[in-house]
Amino acid sequence: MKLLRELAAHVGGEVIGNGETAIESVAPIDSAGRGDIAFIASPKYRHLLATTKASALIVAADEEEGGGTNLLRVADPYLAFAKILDILQPSSPHHGGRHPRSEVYEGAEVGDDVALYPFAVVDEGACIGDRVVLYPGVYVGRNAVIGDDTLLYPNVTVREGCRIGKGVIVHANSVVGSDGFGYAGEGGRHVKIPQTGIVVIEDDVEIGACVTIDRATLGETIIRRGTKVDNIVQIAHNVEIGEDSIIVAQAGIAGSTKIGKRVTLAGQVGVVGHIEIADNVTVGAQSGVIKSLAEKGLYSGTPAMPYTQWQRSYSIVRKLPEMRKRLLQLEQRLEKLEKQ
Amino acid sequence: MKLLRELAAHVGGEVIGNGETAIESVAPIDSAGRGDIAFIASPKYRHLLATTKASALIVAADEEEGGGTNLLRVADPYLAFAKILDILQPSSPHHGGRHPRSEVYEGAEVGDDVALYPFAVVDEGACIGDRVVLYPGVYVGRNAVIGDDTLLYPNVTVREGCRIGKGVIVHANSVVGSDGFGYAGEGGRHVKIPQTGIVVIEDDVEIGACVTIDRATLGETIIRRGTKVDNIVQIAHNVEIGEDSIIVAQAGIAGSTKIGKRVTLAGQVGVVGHIEIADNVTVGAQSGVIKSLAEKGLYSGTPAMPYTQWQRSYSIVRKLPEMRKRLLQLEQRLEKLEKQ
Amino acid sequence: MKLLRELAAHVGGEVIGNGETAIESVAPIDSAGRGDIAFIASPKYRHLLATTKASALIVAADEEEGGGTNLLRVADPYLAFAKILDILQPSSPHHGGRHPRSEVYEGAEVGDDVALYPFAVVDEGACIGDRVVLYPGVYVGRNAVIGDDTLLYPNVTVREGCRIGKGVIVHANSVVGSDGFGYAGEGGRHVKIPQTGIVVIEDDVEIGACVTIDRATLGETIIRRGTKVDNIVQIAHNVEIGEDSIIVAQAGIAGSTKIGKRVTLAGQVGVVGHIEIADNVTVGAQSGVIKSLAEKGLYSGTPAMPYTQWQRSYSIVRKLPEMRKRLLQLEQRLEKLEKQ
Repeated sequence: MKLLRELAAHVGGEVIGNGETAIESVAPIDSAGRGDIAFIASPKYRHLLATTKASALIVAADEEEGGGTNLLRVADPYLAFAKILDILQPSSPHHGGRHPRSEVYEGAEVGDDVALYPFAVVDEGACIGDRVVLYPGVYVGRNAVIGDDTLLYPNVTVREGCRIGKGVIVHANSVVGSDGFGYAGEGGRHVKIPQTGIVVIEDDVEIGACVTIDRATLGETIIRRGTKVDNIVQIAHNVEIGEDSIIVAQAGIAGSTKIGKRVTLAGQVGVVGHIEIADNVTVGAQSGVIKSLAEKGLYSGTPAMPYTQWQRSYSIVRKLPEMRKRLLQLEQRLEKLEKQ
Repeated sequence: MKLLRELAAHVGGEVIGNGETAIESVAPIDSAGRGDIAFIASPKYRHLLATTKASALIVAADEEEGGGTNLLRVADPYLAFAKILDILQPSSPHHGGRHPRSEVYEGAEVGDDVALYPFAVVDEGACIGDRVVLYPGVYVGRNAVIGDDTLLYPNVTVREGCRIGKGVIVHANSVVGSDGFGYAGEGGRHVKIPQTGIVVIEDDVEIGACVTIDRATLGETIIRRGTKVDNIVQIAHNVEIGEDSIIVAQAGIAGSTKIGKRVTLAGQVGVVGHIEIADNVTVGAQSGVIKSLAEKGLYSGTPAMPYTQWQRSYSIVRKLPEMRKRLLQLEQRLEKLEKQ
Repeated sequence: MKLLRELAAHVGGEVIGNGETAIESVAPIDSAGRGDIAFIASPKYRHLLATTKASALIVAADEEEGGGTNLLRVADPYLAFAKILDILQPSSPHHGGRHPRSEVYEGAEVGDDVALYPFAVVDEGACIGDRVVLYPGVYVGRNAVIGDDTLLYPNVTVREGCRIGKGVIVHANSVVGSDGFGYAGEGGRHVKIPQTGIVVIEDDVEIGACVTIDRATLGETIIRRGTKVDNIVQIAHNVEIGEDSIIVAQAGIAGSTKIGKRVTLAGQVGVVGHIEIADNVTVGAQSGVIKSLAEKGLYSGTPAMPYTQWQRSYSIVRKLPEMRKRLLQLEQRLEKLEKQ
């Protein structure tokens, strides 16, 4: 429990109403009750302001006084919501210690205050930092490195030699360091190119569930600091993703492509190999990027083009039957004229 | 082994031929032999009726007598096929009991007649119903609930607090309750929004392999009774899917979207967040749904539109080179006329 | 370490320069140093030929002498690169033997020189060939068969009765033999069709990470010799894929479809069920194949069409706003003429 004024101090906001109000939890505005603080990010929910039973509301700085409900005015309501949620509803603590049914090979190093769940495996020569959590079924391969405060959910596989930074979260059943998909042809058959590189994941990265990140053929596949990757994303060998980028669910990036900083790839986007995407590019959902994008901005479509161009072009696709009809009519009228 | 008349009684069908025929197994019509019952659902295979060596055939109620082969006439051959398969070729029984190498934390409750395979983990406070089967590598998180007769295949992860109903099947390596993908911006960096909600999966749902279902930010991500989800599907935080829907492989549904009852999303469909799809909507493969669909019916394309409109428009895309040529010719002919 | 002339003999190439040069490892051309052999496959990197510090370069047979750098001239540089990498940087050996914390059920057969990691499970009646490696968290189901020299990475699930050939690699967290997605309707509900068939994976196949391959309803889902499957691919029940095909990441193939030999499906391709794709077909990324493709060649688009047709048509989509404008102008000019 926190007082509303304590929450305001925590997020740098201003209370309109009674700062001594006790707040116990965060709730959606339509189901919030006494003791709850609720959140209005979208103007679409503003009509609920008058009727909510929440004890307080997180609102934007320009919000006027409500119908008697306590307001917490902040510069960025969504950010304040995140911070308040974090202190009011902390995630359940992990079991501490090294469970006797976890398996740590000889020659592995394990830091302090780690949580090794049953059936987690740390292979020979691997190095596990302080306060690392390895859930059941996690495998950390030979000579792999896991930085301090990193959390690997159940059944995550980290293959040999890969390096994961500090404060990283990898969600369940993801794979870091599977072989890149590379073959040379010989007599109509496919000869495997050994994949001898590694994957490097820098600090503060978050990786979703069932994500696959392939190791480099030579060198490193790299995901830089602060980048967030959603579920079921495919990142091929030798890809590099810059800092603070966002890769949404089911997107795929083919081999050796370089993605800049603060790039967003929306859901189900595909990017071909061996191209570069500049900083601050956003690519719309389901688009297919087949050439380098050198300018920041919004792109969409397959092949991807500037968003406004895509919008104009594809809005006409729907009108094609009508255009075709008009074309035919023109031909008939013209023929008539020509005959005169 | 069953007699043909016993099968007929089981599925409510009528025997044309010898009801005393012994049937041992179900086989595809082109490879069926003595002792087999085969199945003709599609008229495309009707020519095999005369030559099949099957001892009996499951056919539609309006099928005429065959060339001497025993027929089992039923209202719905596919349904009869399912039911006959179920009694003739029951799936192999699971190993019963709690294997000593499974791990049940103190404070977890485990029902009767469960099958806990080696290296399955049930965390503190979790509740496992009667006759539940947990294959190797399954993790059931703290305070999670698994209903009676539910089957979790190997390496399934169910995170803390999630609730799975009765008679549910979750295929191997799927993840229930991974964190939703939500961040607030702060100084160009992404601040994680804690994901404090859960996933609720109601009775008789089936979830494919390598599926990811994210927990809600607040509240619940819900999959309602009887819905079937194919492999490698992504279901984001706070999504709700109604009863008896079908989500085909590699489809993805973004956050907070509400899908109705008896909806079908075909393979690789993408649905954006915060929209609603009405009951009885079917969306064609690879489509992208970017707005709410308020009317039942068939939709296709990106952005999704009514199927007939999509078909008309996209059939013309192929003809665009020809249309462009005709347009140029019109311009030239018109210019000539204008000069006269 | 190998001498350059030994490498030349190994790959059937010719040394231009000093064959006694010691080569220790393979490196990318831009970071290669003394003791490294580097690789120029693409003419795009030829300008680095003059400045590289590599001790030797793998080049095509028609490459002229370099600026003093030793050259290894070969018919196929990429293939030579693969073979040299294989002998200079062999993958780290697996831990041998049956770890006491692996679990082999009674009635399973295990060959010689296998590596069973902790928490790998071999169920009753399964048969594991010689030199097989099962990483932690692998589950091999009842009566499943794993051929000699096959390697299953962590958390791979192979369900009951499935048969995997010799020299197969399955990457982490993939699923072989999950139930096909089949239901019959009954009173608005979905009745599960039992999936009683198996998956057969022939010799020398490689399967990526987080791939799902469903068992057949009746009979077999088959992946034939030498085919390579990338990450996060969905292969539905009763699919058959011919020899030496390439299925790139995130592609999906619906039920009962037959794919020929030497077919390539690029990334994120979708193929509907019950069709056939001829030998030597290549389908471009993100395409949707909705009809059988009977002729070899290159296809693209949704619905998939011959590549040149697709290219011509979609290049015009971008020009649709301009075409629409010209159409309107024609109508106005024509109307003017008609009034005269």
